[in-house]
Amino acid sequence: MSATSVNLQALGAAAKAAARGLALASTEAKNRALEGISAGLLAQQEAILSANGRDCAAAKAGGLSEAMLDRLLLNPQRLAGMAADVCTVALLPDPVGEYIEMRTLPNGMQVGRVRVPLGVIAAIYESRPNVTVDIASLCLKSGNAVILRGGREALRSNAALASVVQEACRAAGLPEGAVQFVDDPDRARVAELLRMKESIDLMVPRGGAELIRYVAEQAAMPVVAGGIGVCHTYVDVGADQDKALRIVHNAKVRRPTICNALDTVLVHRGIAGSFLPRLAEEFARAGVEMRCDPEAYSFITAQGCGTGAQEGPPPTVLRAVEEDWGKEFLALVAAIKVVDSLDDALAHIQRYGSGHSEAIVTEDYSGAQRFLREVDAAAVYVNASTQFTDGGQFGLGAEVGISTQKMHARGPMGLREMTSYKWVVRGDGHVRPA
Amino acid sequence: MSATSVNLQALGAAAKAAARGLALASTEAKNRALEGISAGLLAQQEAILSANGRDCAAAKAGGLSEAMLDRLLLNPQRLAGMAADVCTVALLPDPVGEYIEMRTLPNGMQVGRVRVPLGVIAAIYESRPNVTVDIASLCLKSGNAVILRGGREALRSNAALASVVQEACRAAGLPEGAVQFVDDPDRARVAELLRMKESIDLMVPRGGAELIRYVAEQAAMPVVAGGIGVCHTYVDVGADQDKALRIVHNAKVRRPTICNALDTVLVHRGIAGSFLPRLAEEFARAGVEMRCDPEAYSFITAQGCGTGAQEGPPPTVLRAVEEDWGKEFLALVAAIKVVDSLDDALAHIQRYGSGHSEAIVTEDYSGAQRFLREVDAAAVYVNASTQFTDGGQFGLGAEVGISTQKMHARGPMGLREMTSYKWVVRGDGHVRPA
Repeated sequence: MSATSVNLQALGAAAKAAARGLALASTEAKNRALEGISAGLLAQQEAILSANGRDCAAAKAGGLSEAMLDRLLLNPQRLAGMAADVCTVALLPDPVGEYIEMRTLPNGMQVGRVRVPLGVIAAIYESRPNVTVDIASLCLKSGNAVILRGGREALRSNAALASVVQEACRAAGLPEGAVQFVDDPDRARVAELLRMKESIDLMVPRGGAELIRYVAEQAAMPVVAGGIGVCHTYVDVGADQDKALRIVHNAKVRRPTICNALDTVLVHRGIAGSFLPRLAEEFARAGVEMRCDPEAYSFITAQGCGTGAQEGPPPTVLRAVEEDWGKEFLALVAAIKVVDSLDDALAHIQRYGSGHSEAIVTEDYSGAQRFLREVDAAAVYVNASTQFTDGGQFGLGAEVGISTQKMHARGPMGLREMTSYKWVVRGDGHVRPA
Repeated sequence: MSATSVNLQALGAAAKAAARGLALASTEAKNRALEGISAGLLAQQEAILSANGRDCAAAKAGGLSEAMLDRLLLNPQRLAGMAADVCTVALLPDPVGEYIEMRTLPNGMQVGRVRVPLGVIAAIYESRPNVTVDIASLCLKSGNAVILRGGREALRSNAALASVVQEACRAAGLPEGAVQFVDDPDRARVAELLRMKESIDLMVPRGGAELIRYVAEQAAMPVVAGGIGVCHTYVDVGADQDKALRIVHNAKVRRPTICNALDTVLVHRGIAGSFLPRLAEEFARAGVEMRCDPEAYSFITAQGCGTGAQEGPPPTVLRAVEEDWGKEFLALVAAIKVVDSLDDALAHIQRYGSGHSEAIVTEDYSGAQRFLREVDAAAVYVNASTQFTDGGQFGLGAEVGISTQKMHARGPMGLREMTSYKWVVRGDGHVRPA
């Protein structure tokens, strides 16, 4: 075993040891640490921004794209936002120690379940340095030790942020080692972390589809494998067209680069002739490129929508290719398809959806019920934008990620989903009969 | 790809396809299938017992141990017991479709979670043919398709039982393919099943520690990895000795071969002098071999307990070796150790326990509270026998296994733990603000 691998093993063992104490830490101590992080981010602003400045300069010199540079950049406003987010986590209820149930059995023995932390959570993420503070604060509040491994470009920024977090933990009396930061940018360390199932209980990848897929495939421990969303909105023949336009527009345009953004619009043939020209006009105004199946293409271009004959910028209407179905665009692009029926829509979603967020727009009661029941996805919607799939929006307060798995947690994962439970039995000399 | 592997792939795909329909099946249809299984077991008794007779004859000729032969054996009483167990599952509430929560958000949108099945569950088990019916009925009730892979010795018995199950499903109108039976005894098929993560959502190994370890290590999909229990009972200085004797005796002797059976007794030094001789006497009467640390050995032998000077059969009192700590005996053997304090006991359990079931016997309130809080195990007990760790005993009605993992489910897994959930959102044209 190489010298480097010994270090990561030691770091994992230290996190594991700290996890035991952290699991027993009081809510008061954990909140004290969170408040300390929030204050520290502001007090250490100069050092953090200076480290970030060096990261940004190096990244720019290295030719990083403008979009990536923007993700990497910290400024006083962004730091203040991070500090405020940590305070929000401090205000959330502590999931640890919550009794999920407690019953008295017929024999007088009490049996229940109480929430406990998972242990050690490792996060592997890319260039956004705010993830360092975000994940660390959620892990601390839920009583989990954490191992942080950010992107190479953000190494100096992350180190500065991690030291604020570690200092706050120390001041609050939390166990040494509760927050571990991997300061080696070598990509081999990621592969090594993914094998450390003895010391890491849960792996949380945050970033692009490629990173998430790599981690999900390689990790020896459980992974919150979410983040990839191929999301459909089906506009039924019974839809209110005004609602449908509002919902489809919001699902695509509000933020096109997040995983709950719309990718494909399915439109019932019975409404396509009147709805699609209106949608094309809306999408054109918003700069959305449309990739249409032959029928949708006819409906849209027949009305001259594709020709620029109407007011506003001309829409980009293209013919869809097979790869456009089931594609996560993460951009102002939408695939559009005409379907025969609700069954047809359900079959398309089953084939091409990624099990993230799927919506129907309809005023038809039975159709809505069928859609909710039959679509197999983390979140299913009637008459609302899929962009609501988010821990904050669903009332979890914050989220560590969105799971598209079925085991453990599905959909947005908040503090509660970062816990396990144990069974607690209180007897008075009870023995089990033969 | 060999011809055989194509078969398993096809079988997995058929299960996956059936899972979709089964997830939507009514409770009535599922219960009809369960009642059909129960009736079929009795109606087909002759064919089942004849198949089992051939299995037993072949196993005997092959030199299978008496204990294994007993596990393999079916008779009218055992079949009737299996039929009754299936009816019990039919009577349990259906977890699928249960709304876990449903709230109305400030914007008027309703958000909740509803239970859904996991999909396809595969069971790999050893010689007990009752597992075929047991797992199949729990999977059907929880809306999961199932792939059954029993032991080679029970092949004919399992085939006969599986065909009763499949016939009952057909008669109840459940999807074809909901229950798949692997009738190839080649061990290579197990390895192949463990790689089929595209079609199997959860793997349930049932059997000895070696099988469970192999499956947990090799499976590409999530596993309910339980069944290995190194269980301690700590007799505190504040214990009521009568309760302690009753509890320790029950935890070891009631059924010594199950995973929640006691392996090590820890005794506080302050009570060891009076308690250990009484315990040795009890254990001697029950034929329990004692493996003692030096201090426990002195306490027990000093009173002549090890010498056969008292009434009853002479106890077997041996000196423990290091391997006895942390060993799952699965037999009438117990390790015994004297500890200095509750802290000492907690440290021993942390080091040697397997996270299954751990107990303290004490009348001391604060000690009991500390034990419940600090021990990290699936089930923690005060003043009760660890043999209660069981889905039936804990009020789950039945169990598919006992998990010693923290993700998804911990401790006994009942029907509820064989489900996931999806988020359901009901809006009225809701869009997410910027």
